[in-house]
Amino acid sequence: MSKRVEIVDVSPRDGLQNECKVLPPETRLELIRLLEQAGVRSIEVGSFVHPKFVPTMANLADICRHLDFSGTQQHYTALVPNLKGFELAVTAGLNHVRLVIVASETLNGKNFKCSVEDSLKGFEQVAGISKEAGVAFGVIIGASFGCPYEGHVPPAQVIRIASRLVELGADEVMLADTTGMAMPDQVETLCGEVRDVLVKMRPGLRVGVHLHNTRNTGYANAYAAYRAGIRLFDASLGGIGGCPFSPNALGNIATEDLVHMFNGMGVETGIDLAGLLKASKWLEQQLGKPMPAMIGKAEPVYPTLTT
Amino acid sequence: MSKRVEIVDVSPRDGLQNECKVLPPETRLELIRLLEQAGVRSIEVGSFVHPKFVPTMANLADICRHLDFSGTQQHYTALVPNLKGFELAVTAGLNHVRLVIVASETLNGKNFKCSVEDSLKGFEQVAGISKEAGVAFGVIIGASFGCPYEGHVPPAQVIRIASRLVELGADEVMLADTTGMAMPDQVETLCGEVRDVLVKMRPGLRVGVHLHNTRNTGYANAYAAYRAGIRLFDASLGGIGGCPFSPNALGNIATEDLVHMFNGMGVETGIDLAGLLKASKWLEQQLGKPMPAMIGKAEPVYPTLTT
Repeated sequence: MSKRVEIVDVSPRDGLQNECKVLPPETRLELIRLLEQAGVRSIEVGSFVHPKFVPTMANLADICRHLDFSGTQQHYTALVPNLKGFELAVTAGLNHVRLVIVASETLNGKNFKCSVEDSLKGFEQVAGISKEAGVAFGVIIGASFGCPYEGHVPPAQVIRIASRLVELGADEVMLADTTGMAMPDQVETLCGEVRDVLVKMRPGLRVGVHLHNTRNTGYANAYAAYRAGIRLFDASLGGIGGCPFSPNALGNIATEDLVHMFNGMGVETGIDLAGLLKASKWLEQQLGKPMPAMIGKAEPVYPTLTT
Repeated sequence: MSKRVEIVDVSPRDGLQNECKVLPPETRLELIRLLEQAGVRSIEVGSFVHPKFVPTMANLADICRHLDFSGTQQHYTALVPNLKGFELAVTAGLNHVRLVIVASETLNGKNFKCSVEDSLKGFEQVAGISKEAGVAFGVIIGASFGCPYEGHVPPAQVIRIASRLVELGADEVMLADTTGMAMPDQVETLCGEVRDVLVKMRPGLRVGVHLHNTRNTGYANAYAAYRAGIRLFDASLGGIGGCPFSPNALGNIATEDLVHMFNGMGVETGIDLAGLLKASKWLEQQLGKPMPAMIGKAEPVYPTLTT
């Protein structure tokens, strides 16, 4: 197995999305630039949602005007919650987008006002347009490890949804634990199972995890996923991305803490930790509040990759 | 392998030891009682050190007067840094104590003004007195996973020290990562190796880990140790126990977050999470500052053991 991982920094999207403070497009572009300077090659730049509902994501197209989507060095993606968002993303020049489905019926219903089956049918339509527009798409499967309403989510349900997505042409499947309910043994088992099934269907498919550290298991879950062969991880600079309604509940796992852990494990990320820490400090100043990430507070033990 | 673990709450010792606020003996006794009420069966009650150097640990003997060391339900231990401390512990009625050695020469020298070999020789003397006094002893091996001065600590050195300790009659060996440098893959490998060697020497020996979450790998390391067959974990209520000189550096892994993780993994701790959270809230009030533990801020997903 490869000892190299890809980290997608989602701070411009999942990180900033729920922040009380709205950062203007030029500041969000600067965040993207600082991430790039630190060697982050994959960035989720925002979400194409209506600014009335999510003001923190407003004017994403203005940011996209400054990004080179034709380059091979940087991989940009953006969240599109619906067909309208998909169209906006294509117009803005994106050649990769991310859709969302939720593995539990209750939460999918609350988020999208439809059943999981109907969401999947909707994706058939997206898949068609996507092919025509030359835009690849990944899918985030929310509540893959548990649902705040239903509790346990059967692994078979996650595997069934993931397989359907691959059949529809998704190039990336992210198992997400947005509410921070996942436990490491569960992550290790489910990631192993999903990966086995999907990679047999399409070798080279991007299979990753999107983890939150709400209950202090985020990094244990990342280690468990790595053990299960996962080599694609979402993370957010500074660990931002918590829920605004529970101010103490931490957000995404922090890019810098994840890079530090991988450095210490001899796993290559291609990312420069010093650059990330500089970016994180800058972001902290922009948001005017302390970050959940810890490696900037303690001294890094593994500033660079151990070999 | 058993799916039951033993958690030793070290908040009355490692937790409070470095706090700026000195809690009087009656408050520390109340902490011990609240832990007992939550079903914590193993508690490190304090350290027999000179109050001039560590005022937070003063009057430990006053606490011990209220503890029943002859009972079989509760396991109490206390840290003894030297022979004088050992004598004080025996006088106070303890029938189990914990000694400390550091796996790196530099840090052992700084802490104890002697070489690792001399520390081990000193333990021979303790072992003799210990047997005579009918007091069992465990040993914490500091810097087992890395040293702030030397960096890498050879696993062979840790195994050599641990083996010598078992030969000397230690009933418990704790691999400690006080400075939070350990990485989960390293923990999994070293714990597996140490456990294999020691359990062959003496079946039933208590082999455990003492982990800190300084760099956000504490719970990943706990999961890794569990995977390697470790069933004995130090943890501190609220996650207190950070270094007073780096206020942002977090302390021990939190007992409540560890119990929650084990609950979710179907691993029995015998501890009541609701009781722990009550105790943690009380401790937060006593110390007058927020705790690093997270499960009291987010809602527990696994309030009880999953089966």
